Amino acid sequence: METHILLLQIAAILVLARAFSELAARFGAPRVIGELCAGIVLGPSILGLIAPNDLIRLLAEIGIILLLFEVGLHTDLGHLVDAGKRSLVLALGGFMFPFALGYLLSRHVFDLSLIVSLFIAGTLTATSIGVTVRILDDLGRQSSPEGEIVLGAAVVDDLLGVLLLAVLYEFSITNTISIASAGKIMGFMVVFFATAPILAKLLSVAIYRFQVVSNSPGVVPTALVALVLSFAALAHAVGAPELLGGFAAGIALSRRFFLPLGLALRVDPEFHEDISNQMRPIIQLFTPIFFVMVGLSLDLSAVDWSSVFVWAFSLSLAAVAIIGKIAGGLIVPENPYMRIAIGMAMVPRGEVGLIFAEIGRVSGIFDENVFAAVVIVIAYTTLFSPFWIRAYYRHFGDRFAEPQPER
Amino acid sequence: METHILLLQIAAILVLARAFSELAARFGAPRVIGELCAGIVLGPSILGLIAPNDLIRLLAEIGIILLLFEVGLHTDLGHLVDAGKRSLVLALGGFMFPFALGYLLSRHVFDLSLIVSLFIAGTLTATSIGVTVRILDDLGRQSSPEGEIVLGAAVVDDLLGVLLLAVLYEFSITNTISIASAGKIMGFMVVFFATAPILAKLLSVAIYRFQVVSNSPGVVPTALVALVLSFAALAHAVGAPELLGGFAAGIALSRRFFLPLGLALRVDPEFHEDISNQMRPIIQLFTPIFFVMVGLSLDLSAVDWSSVFVWAFSLSLAAVAIIGKIAGGLIVPENPYMRIAIGMAMVPRGEVGLIFAEIGRVSGIFDENVFAAVVIVIAYTTLFSPFWIRAYYRHFGDRFAEPQPER
Repeated sequence: METHILLLQIAAILVLARAFSELAARFGAPRVIGELCAGIVLGPSILGLIAPNDLIRLLAEIGIILLLFEVGLHTDLGHLVDAGKRSLVLALGGFMFPFALGYLLSRHVFDLSLIVSLFIAGTLTATSIGVTVRILDDLGRQSSPEGEIVLGAAVVDDLLGVLLLAVLYEFSITNTISIASAGKIMGFMVVFFATAPILAKLLSVAIYRFQVVSNSPGVVPTALVALVLSFAALAHAVGAPELLGGFAAGIALSRRFFLPLGLALRVDPEFHEDISNQMRPIIQLFTPIFFVMVGLSLDLSAVDWSSVFVWAFSLSLAAVAIIGKIAGGLIVPENPYMRIAIGMAMVPRGEVGLIFAEIGRVSGIFDENVFAAVVIVIAYTTLFSPFWIRAYYRHFGDRFAEPQPER
Repeated sequence: METHILLLQIAAILVLARAFSELAARFGAPRVIGELCAGIVLGPSILGLIAPNDLIRLLAEIGIILLLFEVGLHTDLGHLVDAGKRSLVLALGGFMFPFALGYLLSRHVFDLSLIVSLFIAGTLTATSIGVTVRILDDLGRQSSPEGEIVLGAAVVDDLLGVLLLAVLYEFSITNTISIASAGKIMGFMVVFFATAPILAKLLSVAIYRFQVVSNSPGVVPTALVALVLSFAALAHAVGAPELLGGFAAGIALSRRFFLPLGLALRVDPEFHEDISNQMRPIIQLFTPIFFVMVGLSLDLSAVDWSSVFVWAFSLSLAAVAIIGKIAGGLIVPENPYMRIAIGMAMVPRGEVGLIFAEIGRVSGIFDENVFAAVVIVIAYTTLFSPFWIRAYYRHFGDRFAEPQPER
């Protein structure tokens, strides 16, 4: 495609994302909804002006990696560790309930085949970190206690989702489930997340010292973007989603990051400030492209809206997708109001769900109707949960501080 | 190509550009040389790690567009208009002398065919705005009087070069030169450059007002990048190089931009400051990718270094390329020391030259040897002129202020 067309596409994405996010804000909706809608309007669903292409996809991928970097940068590792047990409970519950319910619904109610049912169930497992984080951020709750529990759970969820995808994909080809290869991927992931932040921290100290001696302009944006993208590629190499590489790098560079053994690697606090300030415009530039891309990827015009199966299956699957995640929230030892809020925050599906759907479609596991139903469910959970969460906070937001039953 | 490979390529480009620019600075060379060398090392010439691909090319194109935006942003339109006559003399001289000398050398010394000779001559016409601006900036002379004369001339040069390319390309196919179509392109360009800054100024005022009422984060980076990229696409639509669209947008948003008729469109001076600060990291991120890309595009390993023709032709063509531009500088009514500096600053060839070479090769006008010679000349003028200019400034830099013969 010619360069000037691509430049116009990028410009159109940025302008429409901004216009729609502004519109969403005027109507009291989270801004991210506006960006998703911009993608739906520009994409094959409505105007068909932009088909998702490799270039936009790359910019979108950089956008979500950088967003997760920023999330990591503002995460307090101490709080994340404190929330660890509850995050883990939430992640496991929010992974297993939708998986089990989705499987039962597909296999035993709609009578689909084993592998199709497993793939559909898999689609429901992983929360969209990007959408969830943006919703909480739009509500000003990202650094709240529930925000930290949800963030940790969404990270674990994404890892489990990708792991499940690898296992199911192998199963669909070889018809056997290999515990060994699943264990290997899991081992890689654990090693990555145990070492990546330390490596990133060491590199950031090197960048800091280099900047001090070099005195040349532009070290922070170039070196940090290179660092973040390298860690994304590294995450991919161990089988984890790329965006989690960005998150690991962000955690490492956060103000509150501590190394094991109390290793002293001090950098000037101004450097942290500098990183935040210089990375912000870059992150703000790339992030909307990701959310617009999610909208572009949902081709709602390809759905056969006259099919009874599509309606019945997608509606019941959406119910299961929502109930499953809220059930995951209910088992977290927290204030009951918070349990529900946490479960609701886990509802949006996105990146990993779309990857499941796409692999299902390309490999022939999903036929047109199943694919359509799955895409509708992803669109539904992503587009509608921001409204509920906002409404829920409006009505019950003041009851979160009430005494908690156990902790 | 897979996403994680591309992410690694971008990271490698950013890191090597930084490392080599640092190395260049240590050796007293301009930083841009380091970035070009990083491209030569990463590219097919040496390591062959990165082949220029569409994605890197797009990021590079965005980089040069944003760089020209920044150049425009810091340009004083008043000074540019003041330098106008001298810029025009320099542009025309620096366009015609290399063209005439290149043609004579190719046609009458090396006995090449008419169309081949015309294309070779065309390759020598346009100064690389990007390289020239960076060299002057690295030397801290970008806002100097000679910097403004050179900038204006390089812009005119680029327009003339692209116009010539259109005419010659048509000639190579139809064997006729159409004054009408050349005039049409020229008319479009004139209309574009007369109206684009006004339009961009109006849009920037709209963005400013929107930002004031919207109070949402990230308006400046997204809206301004969209604005700059749109103007680049608009420039392309009228037949001008895309980077000049970025320049037009930058001029419009500069602090000193004035509208004809004294039209009052005041924005808060803080807004200008804000634009500068928020765009800087984005520009610093993308710009090195462009210069690395220029290095990647020069495949020095494809050159048949044992060919006598390649050596003889490329060396004499390089001499002609340098003499032609310096001759262009000598006819500018300025202090004699400055005339030479101005001519030297015009020597680097890049973007437009490479486009000429590429079109010549793809259309079969250039055979392998001619193409190699032309690429060597571009590499030579680009890689070596920064050293001379720096050396020249070191020896004669203090004589620029001496009384000028006429003005």
